[in-house]
Amino acid sequence: MNNFTYYNPTKIEFGKEKENKIGEYIKQSGIKKILLVYGAGSIKRTGLYKKIIISLEKNDIEFEELSGVVSNPLLSKVNEGIQLAKDNDIEAVLGVGGGSVVDSAKAIAVGSMYDGDVWDFFINKAQIKEALSVFTVMTLSATASEMNGNAVIINDDTKQKYSIASVLINPKVSVINPELMATVSKEYLAYSAVDVISHCIEVYFTASTHPHFNSRIVESIVKTVMETTEILLENPNDYDARAEFAWAAIQGLNGLTPAGTEGGSFPNHMIEHSLSALYNVAHGAGLSVVIPAWMKWYKEQNVAQFKRFAKEIFNSEDENVAIEKLEQWFAKIGAPTTLKEVNIPRNGIEDLAINANELANVWGLGELYSKETIVKILEKA
Amino acid sequence: MNNFTYYNPTKIEFGKEKENKIGEYIKQSGIKKILLVYGAGSIKRTGLYKKIIISLEKNDIEFEELSGVVSNPLLSKVNEGIQLAKDNDIEAVLGVGGGSVVDSAKAIAVGSMYDGDVWDFFINKAQIKEALSVFTVMTLSATASEMNGNAVIINDDTKQKYSIASVLINPKVSVINPELMATVSKEYLAYSAVDVISHCIEVYFTASTHPHFNSRIVESIVKTVMETTEILLENPNDYDARAEFAWAAIQGLNGLTPAGTEGGSFPNHMIEHSLSALYNVAHGAGLSVVIPAWMKWYKEQNVAQFKRFAKEIFNSEDENVAIEKLEQWFAKIGAPTTLKEVNIPRNGIEDLAINANELANVWGLGELYSKETIVKILEKA
Repeated sequence: MNNFTYYNPTKIEFGKEKENKIGEYIKQSGIKKILLVYGAGSIKRTGLYKKIIISLEKNDIEFEELSGVVSNPLLSKVNEGIQLAKDNDIEAVLGVGGGSVVDSAKAIAVGSMYDGDVWDFFINKAQIKEALSVFTVMTLSATASEMNGNAVIINDDTKQKYSIASVLINPKVSVINPELMATVSKEYLAYSAVDVISHCIEVYFTASTHPHFNSRIVESIVKTVMETTEILLENPNDYDARAEFAWAAIQGLNGLTPAGTEGGSFPNHMIEHSLSALYNVAHGAGLSVVIPAWMKWYKEQNVAQFKRFAKEIFNSEDENVAIEKLEQWFAKIGAPTTLKEVNIPRNGIEDLAINANELANVWGLGELYSKETIVKILEKA
Repeated sequence: MNNFTYYNPTKIEFGKEKENKIGEYIKQSGIKKILLVYGAGSIKRTGLYKKIIISLEKNDIEFEELSGVVSNPLLSKVNEGIQLAKDNDIEAVLGVGGGSVVDSAKAIAVGSMYDGDVWDFFINKAQIKEALSVFTVMTLSATASEMNGNAVIINDDTKQKYSIASVLINPKVSVINPELMATVSKEYLAYSAVDVISHCIEVYFTASTHPHFNSRIVESIVKTVMETTEILLENPNDYDARAEFAWAAIQGLNGLTPAGTEGGSFPNHMIEHSLSALYNVAHGAGLSVVIPAWMKWYKEQNVAQFKRFAKEIFNSEDENVAIEKLEQWFAKIGAPTTLKEVNIPRNGIEDLAINANELANVWGLGELYSKETIVKILEKA
């Protein structure tokens, strides 16, 4: 087992009606003025926006607003938020939405305390040393951004989908009310399921050291996500299934599953980022295309763990059967498994590979994932 | 799934040689003077004491010392520490040892900020509103005190073994170096294994709502503890097994397993506390006696979960077989399973039941666990 530091100071407020207390949670942190960040405005249609405002006003929290964050969130919107925060003496950022909104809130929290270009932090030109406090009210479970210090943003100009990580942008408090997620489309539920599964199986398969305990936790998450996704596709209003999905999603990327592992990486996320950046494919949909292809290419490099996965998840002795079954399960829940399904032509592979290889170099995976290798993987999709 | 708050701000520094940085971790919190709390002095024999002192001095941390904390830690020792802390303007308490030492450190941290009797907090006469910071370097894994806000202390006068709980006494930083645990006796390793298993199966069996995800996490912990205990009894120096045991132990009582469950309780701990309090039985040894007896008495009240346990842990369809196998496993690793083995005579049961029922009333379980019921359970041991 490898040495590690585990530190996750996010407070999770989980359950029904907790969104009505968001103003109270913010006030308890001594904060008086926030920037409220959200997406296209579905929170206004569902009534969540109103609840948030009432709670803020009740607790004397002043606020400015930034709306219009899109899936695959853009740097231009982040910069707009940073300007707003700087102009208005904002003390904290509250993201109300899914991972894209929260990631944008985090990037704004970092950029608001920095004189230079916030993109510096994404390309390792600057280190995060301070940030505004971040709070969240989640309407979608997938990225675990609600309980980690990660944020992924797309640079509109360069088409790079890059990330930052710091415990300083772990949300202070995240509100998870599964009821607020009942309106998520079946399509996005499927993408979310794939995303959560990918978060924990990437390290599970690629780590050179992966203790049994970690494997058991990963398998617990995968089984729970598969079980609850099937229930929710039948009945989107099953509160308990929605709640288990949400909590398992958080455990999938809050630092628990990789603790003590060694040498793990996120090649599927790395390759997928090129699909999102160049073709604006939804993150989970892109992963669903990349994962089975990557597994077919990679399996021989860690046969024992692929056999373990086959046994634990699909009760099969054969890793090839497991890969096939996982691909079939993705298809069954409505996630794409081929480039064709996400409208990427075969002659687009070359550019995807160039884009992904560039990120591979940033992540220190350039040697293993050359342009040629990525082409080989994507050709299986 | 029940509403819950999950908040665990303890930073875990896990791995080899991390104890040499404890002074640095304390200094990073802006603390200049601490109380160093430890047990009978084995840390001097192993050289750990010297490492700690060097690290403290290197980082200009002044310290006072309190030694002599015993297993089943005593209120009198806690009061001694509180006096030391008050007399010397102590800013934080560093516990170096196992659960008893850390629990004492926590109680001292609370009592040092309070004008009245620290026992007030244990009998719900006072609420914890402030506490000194707590740091730990662990030499034994079992209680998860290194990553929770709980402390259990025995009142020497009243023979009550009672507890306090507050996130204010969650350690700021806990150092877990599995190498420091290699000298734990086989006996105490066995007791620790039973303790960890008990922490998560108590709620697993007693909760009226226990989501599948939580059950899977509990089963992951139980499997890991059983697997690694067997390895360690053969080879105490197996670092990886020691590390997995230590990390699983932490997950067993850091708030993860009960999150979202409803109606769970700790009847085995409750009954065991009377064995520790009246006969000074080691906590894990007492649990090992109580658990099989309690399971035999309780099983009909939650047959489905007992069947699940049988299937997942012992690959059996029969819950009675599983209880028997667990009892056999306790015996195999060297933990006692009868009152006789811990030198408690049959005519001592009555007093144990009176003591345990008193605690049952404090914990709100008095109705379910009358004196008569506890007698019935203990007679099975």
